[in-house]
Amino acid sequence: MTNTHPVTVLGLGAMGRALAHRFRTAGVATTVWNRTPGKDPELVAAGAVSAPTVTEAVRGGHLVIVVLLDHASVHQQLDPVATELRGKHLLNLTSTSPEQSRELAAWAAAHGIEFLDGGIMAVPSMIGAEGASILYSGSPTVFDTHRATLELLGAADYFGTDPGLAALWDFALLTTMYAMFGGFFQGAALLASADVPATDFAARATAWVTAMAHTLPAYARVIDTGAFTDEVFQDLTFTKSALDALRQAATDAGITAEPLSGLAALVDRQVAAGHGAAAFERTAAALRTPH
Amino acid sequence: MTNTHPVTVLGLGAMGRALAHRFRTAGVATTVWNRTPGKDPELVAAGAVSAPTVTEAVRGGHLVIVVLLDHASVHQQLDPVATELRGKHLLNLTSTSPEQSRELAAWAAAHGIEFLDGGIMAVPSMIGAEGASILYSGSPTVFDTHRATLELLGAADYFGTDPGLAALWDFALLTTMYAMFGGFFQGAALLASADVPATDFAARATAWVTAMAHTLPAYARVIDTGAFTDEVFQDLTFTKSALDALRQAATDAGITAEPLSGLAALVDRQVAAGHGAAAFERTAAALRTPH
Repeated sequence: MTNTHPVTVLGLGAMGRALAHRFRTAGVATTVWNRTPGKDPELVAAGAVSAPTVTEAVRGGHLVIVVLLDHASVHQQLDPVATELRGKHLLNLTSTSPEQSRELAAWAAAHGIEFLDGGIMAVPSMIGAEGASILYSGSPTVFDTHRATLELLGAADYFGTDPGLAALWDFALLTTMYAMFGGFFQGAALLASADVPATDFAARATAWVTAMAHTLPAYARVIDTGAFTDEVFQDLTFTKSALDALRQAATDAGITAEPLSGLAALVDRQVAAGHGAAAFERTAAALRTPH
Repeated sequence: MTNTHPVTVLGLGAMGRALAHRFRTAGVATTVWNRTPGKDPELVAAGAVSAPTVTEAVRGGHLVIVVLLDHASVHQQLDPVATELRGKHLLNLTSTSPEQSRELAAWAAAHGIEFLDGGIMAVPSMIGAEGASILYSGSPTVFDTHRATLELLGAADYFGTDPGLAALWDFALLTTMYAMFGGFFQGAALLASADVPATDFAARATAWVTAMAHTLPAYARVIDTGAFTDEVFQDLTFTKSALDALRQAATDAGITAEPLSGLAALVDRQVAAGHGAAAFERTAAALRTPH
């Protein structure tokens, strides 16, 4: 690939290796480094340069990508080479929280480093393939300069200059996903009480969850207007009855209903506070009210 | 529609009215009844017979469908007409739990009534349209005899003779749906902290949840084998870190993380018990272990 700047990948866990492999496949000049050695023979065979130190690795690339264990690991490796990074472009793909990404951006700004944060919505095997998506926020200069390089990895979307936004979007999507998995596990346990295999359940649950996912925009419109008592499609009193019935059925089947317990508590509290006639969507606003 | 038996619909809430309308549109002989009068002028105009009492309503149909408020309402209306129902086919579409459906089946059997239970996976406006699905279990005689009539309402699937199975499937799917909605509300609240509208979030969440829904069969295969330590894709220790980070981000954004709290407690408990290296899917089995 011509017209791309050389890149450096710091961290060769499964994700770092996948990123570096994709760059090499596309012919991007790539330098790699890992804290413990031995992770890069295949990358070197594919033309990557293996750097013995972080300093040498940083010298090899104009775009320096960190894919380390956590926020602390990023500081541990980058703090000593801050001077070396001055004037370079830094992309953090380590899983960090919105606040941690903002902290890294402030650290980078203090050292004259252009900083972009990214949230990878894919597993390593998906990198470079259909369906992979990476969310970015922070420096528009870094995003615009390396856009073609970033698009090698998956769909590249830029959310704004707030360096915490990509992580916030990432976390919002992961929150929805984990909650859905929790509900699926509870549903599978419920059906297991009647000897229905989880694979039978999954076949139908995939179609059902997909159909319900397409109702989210309608819920979102109500959340955005905040008009929780106009044209109510499903009120909180009905929702409480439904959740109570689901919890009772779990108890009857000898399982705990924990994946639904937090949502149920939120709904119960709103009904007890006199909001039973308000829309179920009011729950999104209730989350912002500490109890 | 020829070759269909006359039907009776007991209960003319929004769902009962939708069912009766669909039957009349297809030319099925339909008798309707509601506890409080005045719900049926449009149905009568469409050719339905309005019965003044439950007894007369039951006499009008061979297939008697109850769509009432709850389990108690079903007994309140049907107990006095048990003799009238003998030899008839009874379909319960009232929202009842698996145990309540099984109780109704036992009551029906004791009175010589063929009983089928159903769970409606649709809102009233969807009845008879693409996407509507009704899950059935109980008497195969009732299902087979009236299959063409039932297919007027939506896709008709029969799950087995256990009269609680349809409700169990219904509840398992609803559990997954509500949990997903809870996660979506938390995600929307998280993004609201950075002034991102929920409608922006929903557009992306729909695609993301749909993609993740298609991974459920892979999770299900692990649940069914119970081999939670072979070829682990995501272990409980990693899951705990992810859920901790999501909860911390919620706190940082000034919202509660309640929709994830139950799942997080389940994961924490497994890690504390020494199962950190086991697969995330172990959570489905952990639900069956009372703590």
